[in-house]
Amino acid sequence: MKTSPGVLMVMGSDSDLPIMKDSALALQEFNIDYQLTVCSAHRCPGRTAELASEAERNGFNVIIAGAGGAAHLPGVIASHTTLPVIGVPILAHSLAGADSLYSIAQMPRGIPVATVAINGAFNAGLLAVQMLSLKDEELREKLQIYRKKLGEGVEKKDRLLQEKGAERYLEEKGL
Amino acid sequence: MKTSPGVLMVMGSDSDLPIMKDSALALQEFNIDYQLTVCSAHRCPGRTAELASEAERNGFNVIIAGAGGAAHLPGVIASHTTLPVIGVPILAHSLAGADSLYSIAQMPRGIPVATVAINGAFNAGLLAVQMLSLKDEELREKLQIYRKKLGEGVEKKDRLLQEKGAERYLEEKGL
Amino acid sequence: MKTSPGVLMVMGSDSDLPIMKDSALALQEFNIDYQLTVCSAHRCPGRTAELASEAERNGFNVIIAGAGGAAHLPGVIASHTTLPVIGVPILAHSLAGADSLYSIAQMPRGIPVATVAINGAFNAGLLAVQMLSLKDEELREKLQIYRKKLGEGVEKKDRLLQEKGAERYLEEKGL
Amino acid sequence: MKTSPGVLMVMGSDSDLPIMKDSALALQEFNIDYQLTVCSAHRCPGRTAELASEAERNGFNVIIAGAGGAAHLPGVIASHTTLPVIGVPILAHSLAGADSLYSIAQMPRGIPVATVAINGAFNAGLLAVQMLSLKDEELREKLQIYRKKLGEGVEKKDRLLQEKGAERYLEEKGL
Amino acid sequence: MKTSPGVLMVMGSDSDLPIMKDSALALQEFNIDYQLTVCSAHRCPGRTAELASEAERNGFNVIIAGAGGAAHLPGVIASHTTLPVIGVPILAHSLAGADSLYSIAQMPRGIPVATVAINGAFNAGLLAVQMLSLKDEELREKLQIYRKKLGEGVEKKDRLLQEKGAERYLEEKGL
Amino acid sequence: MKTSPGVLMVMGSDSDLPIMKDSALALQEFNIDYQLTVCSAHRCPGRTAELASEAERNGFNVIIAGAGGAAHLPGVIASHTTLPVIGVPILAHSLAGADSLYSIAQMPRGIPVATVAINGAFNAGLLAVQMLSLKDEELREKLQIYRKKLGEGVEKKDRLLQEKGAERYLEEKGL
Amino acid sequence: MKTSPGVLMVMGSDSDLPIMKDSALALQEFNIDYQLTVCSAHRCPGRTAELASEAERNGFNVIIAGAGGAAHLPGVIASHTTLPVIGVPILAHSLAGADSLYSIAQMPRGIPVATVAINGAFNAGLLAVQMLSLKDEELREKLQIYRKKLGEGVEKKDRLLQEKGAERYLEEKGL
Amino acid sequence: MKTSPGVLMVMGSDSDLPIMKDSALALQEFNIDYQLTVCSAHRCPGRTAELASEAERNGFNVIIAGAGGAAHLPGVIASHTTLPVIGVPILAHSLAGADSLYSIAQMPRGIPVATVAINGAFNAGLLAVQMLSLKDEELREKLQIYRKKLGEGVEKKDRLLQEKGAERYLEEKGL
Repeated sequence: MKTSPGVLMVMGSDSDLPIMKDSALALQEFNIDYQLTVCSAHRCPGRTAELASEAERNGFNVIIAGAGGAAHLPGVIASHTTLPVIGVPILAHSLAGADSLYSIAQMPRGIPVATVAINGAFNAGLLAVQMLSLKDEELREKLQIYRKKLGEGVEKKDRLLQEKGAERYLEEKGL
Repeated sequence: MKTSPGVLMVMGSDSDLPIMKDSALALQEFNIDYQLTVCSAHRCPGRTAELASEAERNGFNVIIAGAGGAAHLPGVIASHTTLPVIGVPILAHSLAGADSLYSIAQMPRGIPVATVAINGAFNAGLLAVQMLSLKDEELREKLQIYRKKLGEGVEKKDRLLQEKGAERYLEEKGL
Repeated sequence: MKTSPGVLMVMGSDSDLPIMKDSALALQEFNIDYQLTVCSAHRCPGRTAELASEAERNGFNVIIAGAGGAAHLPGVIASHTTLPVIGVPILAHSLAGADSLYSIAQMPRGIPVATVAINGAFNAGLLAVQMLSLKDEELREKLQIYRKKLGEGVEKKDRLLQEKGAERYLEEKGL
Repeated sequence: MKTSPGVLMVMGSDSDLPIMKDSALALQEFNIDYQLTVCSAHRCPGRTAELASEAERNGFNVIIAGAGGAAHLPGVIASHTTLPVIGVPILAHSLAGADSLYSIAQMPRGIPVATVAINGAFNAGLLAVQMLSLKDEELREKLQIYRKKLGEGVEKKDRLLQEKGAERYLEEKGL
Repeated sequence: MKTSPGVLMVMGSDSDLPIMKDSALALQEFNIDYQLTVCSAHRCPGRTAELASEAERNGFNVIIAGAGGAAHLPGVIASHTTLPVIGVPILAHSLAGADSLYSIAQMPRGIPVATVAINGAFNAGLLAVQMLSLKDEELREKLQIYRKKLGEGVEKKDRLLQEKGAERYLEEKGL
Repeated sequence: MKTSPGVLMVMGSDSDLPIMKDSALALQEFNIDYQLTVCSAHRCPGRTAELASEAERNGFNVIIAGAGGAAHLPGVIASHTTLPVIGVPILAHSLAGADSLYSIAQMPRGIPVATVAINGAFNAGLLAVQMLSLKDEELREKLQIYRKKLGEGVEKKDRLLQEKGAERYLEEKGL
Repeated sequence: MKTSPGVLMVMGSDSDLPIMKDSALALQEFNIDYQLTVCSAHRCPGRTAELASEAERNGFNVIIAGAGGAAHLPGVIASHTTLPVIGVPILAHSLAGADSLYSIAQMPRGIPVATVAINGAFNAGLLAVQMLSLKDEELREKLQIYRKKLGEGVEKKDRLLQEKGAERYLEEKGL
Repeated sequence: MKTSPGVLMVMGSDSDLPIMKDSALALQEFNIDYQLTVCSAHRCPGRTAELASEAERNGFNVIIAGAGGAAHLPGVIASHTTLPVIGVPILAHSLAGADSLYSIAQMPRGIPVATVAINGAFNAGLLAVQMLSLKDEELREKLQIYRKKLGEGVEKKDRLLQEKGAERYLEEKGL
């Protein structure tokens, strides 16, 4: 097995790409190698099984899978690998996202999927980085710096709000 | 392919058997051959894929699959066969059954699952019989007789209710 | 009874037609005869009962019924025939589609409706084809070819994504 | 048409009787004639249609229908009569009653059902009395007396609570 | 008490008027006198109590109340009168209408509200007409004619659909 | 107006008392005077309006109201007073408490209700104390001591758990 | 501790500002001092803890916190202070606001949050005023005047509606 | 930082222990060191912050946090560490577990929590093992053996079912 911390990202349909590319953004932020692929649990089950069962051998350490509606993809992938699998429920046209959230989170005993928020692809990427950081001290440091910046970003917005007041702040931000 | 109208019944866990045996009851009522098997989509994905992809060759015409929680089993089976697949959402300890209903019904374009009511295993069996009856005139007749009896059963209860009155009816039925 | 595999498609209102025509698309793909009709369970109950109870005699083998809100149409049709009835819950303005999904899926013991996804009219058509294929070997072969193409379509998209990268892919697809 | 204010009460299954008998209690309180009958919308659609379409001719003024799960009965009855139909959603084993509430309340334009609370059969009876009171001054007076008593009942409980204190009150009531 | 079948329509806010005017449409169809008023259960509780408790004396026979969100108006009105009260849950910005539906339907024992569909103001009007028809034979006849027309409207749409085909039908209707 | 920090506690039915008495427990903890009363928004609207509109004059500073189902009581009380009103949604037999939570929380602009958790009567009492503490320095100190004890209680349980281990802890606690 | 009735308003993200500024509007109406700040419970937990635990010392009497999604902010703030904390659930892109409502309302025993409606920031402001009025007679009077105006505003709209009729009213209001 | 793969398990209340001990079971299966602690996000926020921010320094690699209701614990812990945090939603008395699932999964951008099924503490333990296995080849092998056994366990049950038949199987298992 390769030691490079590669992440495999799978989505059930290319219509999920506008959401799932956020996982890539998070991984890029930390210089993590990744591969992004479209592979439906139901329309190409054979290739899904193959992707999942060979992921470890192919040097991947974590798999992120996003899907909407019945959203079986993350669970199906998890059934073919013992790598940690992160699932991203994707909001579709009905049931307000409850369908994909339930399908991804409610996995049976023995086969967990690490579920993030509905459309939370960016956090899926971050969670993958956190997992990879367990064997990479540099990554742990980068995560702490990133987290610090997150906090500073909020503080900066707050200073701006204190300075401008709510009305002008909203106006200038176009909110 | 065999012509006998066999039905394959799969459930994800033996804890689903008290519900899923109702499918067998319905099939017995119509003398339909069936096989009842425990096979988890997540714990034995290989065998699930095999069961599903060989079902047609093994002479099955319809597959009934029951599962609770994330309830991927019916969809996973449907991804490996073009036989009609009937899904039975099974009530588990949380979310009042919404999780399994959504996971089974909300399948993506291209891979349908014929979903019945939560815990509706008996109806899954009947639906299988209706499908099989498309090529079996005798079965169509039996279905009509069965349906007629259903109605008569309700009428009989009603006559009893008219005769006894609500109070005595409830008492004698232990309701 | 005629042996031609006709499918009767019923919708409760012509406002359901933009969704329900997808069932016709699926049937056209497999050269299945169908009839598309508007008939409300509540506004024309007599004609609904007639349509349903004469469907078998009129040579139909499967009925697809779509409805939103209280969505009684599929169940009402099922009560008048022993042909398999497929129900399509249609998303309306409130409750995110839960109302029509529950009303169609939660049928009582004895009268099943094969429920598909909310707005899943295309899958309803495919499911009808799967049922019809039980007595038509040619159709079974076509279904397998169709399924194979489905998988190839996903693979093709994936190759394009690998080639272009996520950004250009999204741009060119206008996503 | 007879002028006596008869109420027809229909339930889909005798298992609904322990709830639906509360409608009878309310009607007895006001000396309203009623008939209680078991008739399933799906298992005996013909008799349901007949019951509903002949209800007016048979001297009924209001129909109360109770059902659980898909709960089509009230809507189906409403489609066969222009008498006011009151629907009682009955709590079943899954979805916490949302299925029957949605199925009964979300009727399409043109065919209303007057929906009461889940398991609210007693209120269905009262609502029927309120409707009947529109043409019966004596009934209007009785309703006002009944309402007054309702309030007094609460006040009486409150006086007892003030007198005993919470602890003893709970103890004596076995709460 | 006046015998003219007047209907009082109350809404909690003028933002409900675009929905609630549909109740007026239904009443106009049957030449029923009505009064349309804005009166919030919470912002003007005194006037609400007055409106409700004097409604009967002022010659009203039925009250229709529409509200969104917490939607207490129909229940509050019902607490001040023994006239039948019809409640219209109005879809607001969150919870997909479940909040108003639950608040209106789930009334306690003793004080029923006849709940119609979310945004179902037209049906509220029809239900009022059905109630009024109990003491007005002419109205009963009009209701039967109206119901017949409803059915014919659907049949007419169906004939057009059969004639034009789905594609042209959708095009010409701009659907 | 009296300056003593009295709290008026109202519940819609004596069946709510086993839950609502927890509010009294919280108030007793801080030696706050309170009155506990049963008064239904719908069954005794006049007395409810009176209780609420005279509460301030009668020396009450905060009102706690608990109700289940349609749960209008807290909102109705809030419409008759400008005292802060705390609402306790009470779990009833259906809809898992969502009905009372929505009815109490989703109040319209202008008339807030401070909603606590479903069955959260104890917290309603604490929240009342927090409000009262705004004008009572001693109470503020007591709240800080109470809060500190809360934390110490958890720490004590944790020490016990560390000492005994999970198995013995569960055994001895009878969990 | 200062006696001036200052209100601290915190929101988790500046994207909540278009909603949360309504709290400020309510406070301005009553000339209450407030501070509006952006501070995320998760991105800057240290500053959140500090803000909350120093709020009382800094002269604040009430804290209003708004958040969407997991919406922990109000509860986290409440864990660091014994001042009353008002929580505003903010509607986000999925689950129709149920996620933020549940997260804010369902607080555990010991740490209440006074939850208002989804997006109900204006009411949060009013509720703060009601709390502050407990020690400020002038504020109590202002609240009664405000409440009276609220009612008059509705009555004025109603008079206009009576005068113009529904059609013209809707037209002129652009509804 | 220590390299031993320790897991910190935190629960908000000792009433969560009967569920959360399942995480320990999973960790014991793989000989992973762990510490089990009770620490409420709201009742002891300081200690929670400390536990979380010192977890890494104390040699923990993964944190598992379980909570019910508002269920802020996992998110609050995640805000104080960059270690991966796994959240276990715990079923409480209302809302069927939706409250804790939403509160744990719907975390904002920047601070992920890896959510498992409602009451899915065992899977939380397994997921922790999967994360730890990224830097421990032996653990990866153990996971594969464990997974294989899971599948064999299902197969064994199936063989028994085939041998005994459904009736005797249920009887002997006491199902």
